[in-house]
Amino acid sequence: MKVQPMIELDFDKLGGLVPAIAQDEKTGEVLMMAFMNRESFDLTLKTGIAHYWSRSRNKLWKKGETSGNFQEVKEIRIDCDDDTILLRIHQVGDAACHTGYRSCFYRVVDKGELKINGRKIHNPEK
Amino acid sequence: MKVQPMIELDFDKLGGLVPAIAQDEKTGEVLMMAFMNRESFDLTLKTGIAHYWSRSRNKLWKKGETSGNFQEVKEIRIDCDDDTILLRIHQVGDAACHTGYRSCFYRVVDKGELKINGRKIHNPEK
Repeated sequence: MKVQPMIELDFDKLGGLVPAIAQDEKTGEVLMMAFMNRESFDLTLKTGIAHYWSRSRNKLWKKGETSGNFQEVKEIRIDCDDDTILLRIHQVGDAACHTGYRSCFYRVVDKGELKINGRKIHNPEK
Repeated sequence: MKVQPMIELDFDKLGGLVPAIAQDEKTGEVLMMAFMNRESFDLTLKTGIAHYWSRSRNKLWKKGETSGNFQEVKEIRIDCDDDTILLRIHQVGDAACHTGYRSCFYRVVDKGELKINGRKIHNPEK
């Protein structure tokens, strides 16, 4: 007998994926948005470390697997339609963005242009 | 001569849509996630009121168009890949969720189950 999972997400709307927002558990800063498939959601639940699905590499993506900058999951919230995940996390190494910024949302719309307005933690070129 | 827009988002990854996260501008609470197409993004920029694309109704969706509970956009942030939008907003009427909760993320994963943990603003059945 197969045990039914107790949390059923709607993976059908986006071809097997659901958006997952990563938010700093202490400050509330939104750090990034990525996608999860069922396997990455299950692994995130099981391990307490954020796992996503990389659309560009088409593979399971344990955030920080090469850099060591994992995301420790403190709380998982699910939206009203069961089709979006909100992770409240602790970002190891401070920078969630591959550009070295704290947040992927380091640019703000200002008079019709994008201006950089974010905290750079490290220089990924070094 | 057609003037090029100064902010180019990547609408191609999701068939003409990009995810847009709405976050309370004051508290940082994540209130909802929805999708925008180019028209709804342009209207959001132009009017300062959040416009989305409703996937279920397959039409432009000015959030609050029936209830009057608009989202006043205070800041727009774009992520590193130009494929996700973060709106910092003021939610008129306090509830962003159609269920009457403040946030669509009113359920939290607790021991493998979803438990309600959110602030209910009104009862939509009344």
